[in-house]
Amino acid sequence: MVGQPRSVALVAIDWGTTTARAYWLDQGGGIVGERSAALGVQKIEGGRFREALATLVGGDIPAGTPFIACGMIGSRQGWLEAPYLACPTDFVAMAGALAHLPDVPLAIVPGLICRDADGVPDVMRGEETQVFGALDNTASRQLVVLPGTHSKWVLVDRGGIETFSTFMTGELYAVLREHSILGRLAATGADAAAFDRGTRASLRDGAGLSHDVFSARTLALTAELAPEGVADYLSGLLLGAEVAAGRRWIEGHSAQDLSVTLIGDSMLCNRYQRALAAADISAAGGPSDAAALGLWRIAVHAGIVR
Amino acid sequence: MVGQPRSVALVAIDWGTTTARAYWLDQGGGIVGERSAALGVQKIEGGRFREALATLVGGDIPAGTPFIACGMIGSRQGWLEAPYLACPTDFVAMAGALAHLPDVPLAIVPGLICRDADGVPDVMRGEETQVFGALDNTASRQLVVLPGTHSKWVLVDRGGIETFSTFMTGELYAVLREHSILGRLAATGADAAAFDRGTRASLRDGAGLSHDVFSARTLALTAELAPEGVADYLSGLLLGAEVAAGRRWIEGHSAQDLSVTLIGDSMLCNRYQRALAAADISAAGGPSDAAALGLWRIAVHAGIVR
Repeated sequence: MVGQPRSVALVAIDWGTTTARAYWLDQGGGIVGERSAALGVQKIEGGRFREALATLVGGDIPAGTPFIACGMIGSRQGWLEAPYLACPTDFVAMAGALAHLPDVPLAIVPGLICRDADGVPDVMRGEETQVFGALDNTASRQLVVLPGTHSKWVLVDRGGIETFSTFMTGELYAVLREHSILGRLAATGADAAAFDRGTRASLRDGAGLSHDVFSARTLALTAELAPEGVADYLSGLLLGAEVAAGRRWIEGHSAQDLSVTLIGDSMLCNRYQRALAAADISAAGGPSDAAALGLWRIAVHAGIVR
Repeated sequence: MVGQPRSVALVAIDWGTTTARAYWLDQGGGIVGERSAALGVQKIEGGRFREALATLVGGDIPAGTPFIACGMIGSRQGWLEAPYLACPTDFVAMAGALAHLPDVPLAIVPGLICRDADGVPDVMRGEETQVFGALDNTASRQLVVLPGTHSKWVLVDRGGIETFSTFMTGELYAVLREHSILGRLAATGADAAAFDRGTRASLRDGAGLSHDVFSARTLALTAELAPEGVADYLSGLLLGAEVAAGRRWIEGHSAQDLSVTLIGDSMLCNRYQRALAAADISAAGGPSDAAALGLWRIAVHAGIVR
């Protein structure tokens, strides 16, 4: 814990599947302290969320300070379910749909649900708050990409979220690297050229991801790809496939003229920036504390803080 | 072991990664016996292939009987590497490129390698023999699909294999089902309607596989897909994506007028037939002992049997 607990107006928690990160915010929404712990929803047994919260924030909370949280803590497996809000929706509606615990001054931000042209649903939980934190002017139409286990491409318009699309890129990489034949010829190493080669291959041919990923094996078998490059080549293939599909998604929403704001881990955002550039999509990084900023703005909208 | 060891002219072995299957063939190439064991290349430690062969065939081999094998036994991790032959190639060339062990009367069929328009390699090992066994007339242009962990789409022409394409459909299904979030909402069950729904979704929208697979979670979350249907829906999505990509591959080789011969496990071939039909591609099953038939024909070409 860093900062001045006495000036705290709100404790904002980005409470995900594996990790919970608490931010102490002052009267102006400035971050005066933060702490994270491996207290994500999946790590908490027997519904002991209250104990987890106490552990996370320790004694650093003046009595009467309100709490607000986003992420999987509001899922069916979380502390209290905050049902998905349907898109398009705006941040005022999100603030009005907070779920409130009966005996703890904690409000939980709902996740969002949208449907594609065929009616197939897509969901997010936590990213909506980051988007709200990253954009200080949500009135203009904007495109936000949040790389991760389940990457989200989000179209923002008129003060709210119009629609979004999920890509399981990070999880696909992890399961293929750890559990498939593709990991067997891979050696530890970083290889930016191999990453770019994978990106270009996916963007180029559209032969289908389940075909393209096999080349991470065949190129290694024929010694046309070094073992140290296999993992980055596979990563490039998967990011390239996401960008190729994301580009079609953007075009389907007539949003091809928008530049992209990237939110997330800076190393990962750099990879995405590289893959997006290969598809002639310009991208710039957003703020690093987007979740805290978003939680503050929602709390203000909801009247939890002034 | 079933049949008459005394009439054996050849022992043909389909020797893969996990399983080895031996066929006893008579002077006319008819199967007079077979036996399979969990003696695949990955199961054999310390290079004890000779002992594995003895275990597999037992005492049922008259002295002087030749052996022939295809599959991973000829890979770098196998008994003796039979280097990949480049496509297009014909079966006479394959017979001429058999690898011979110095001290055991065993010949090993080489795998095949091809390259796409961008020079990216693709490989197979074992399936080339099944293709040769399945087609009694390889002079005409034909399309063979071998579903499996790594499905192969093979274009046959002028007595040989013109080119082919691999899809990691089976392995993707396994790793996603067992190791990803998509397996968590799945309950045991079979649901043909859910399979068809997945197939149609992949064939329809082309939103990208890493996006589409996420719908196996969201549809379950919103109770629009029963837990018992999740696995078959995911299977349908993956097969549909393979068929969509395979269809583009077929068109790229001006082979869209050809019907498909399916070789492999009959349950799996039925699924593929269903998915292919959804894409208006007609398909029929090939012989069930394609590997044994192919090994016999290669042995005849090589002069190992008359």
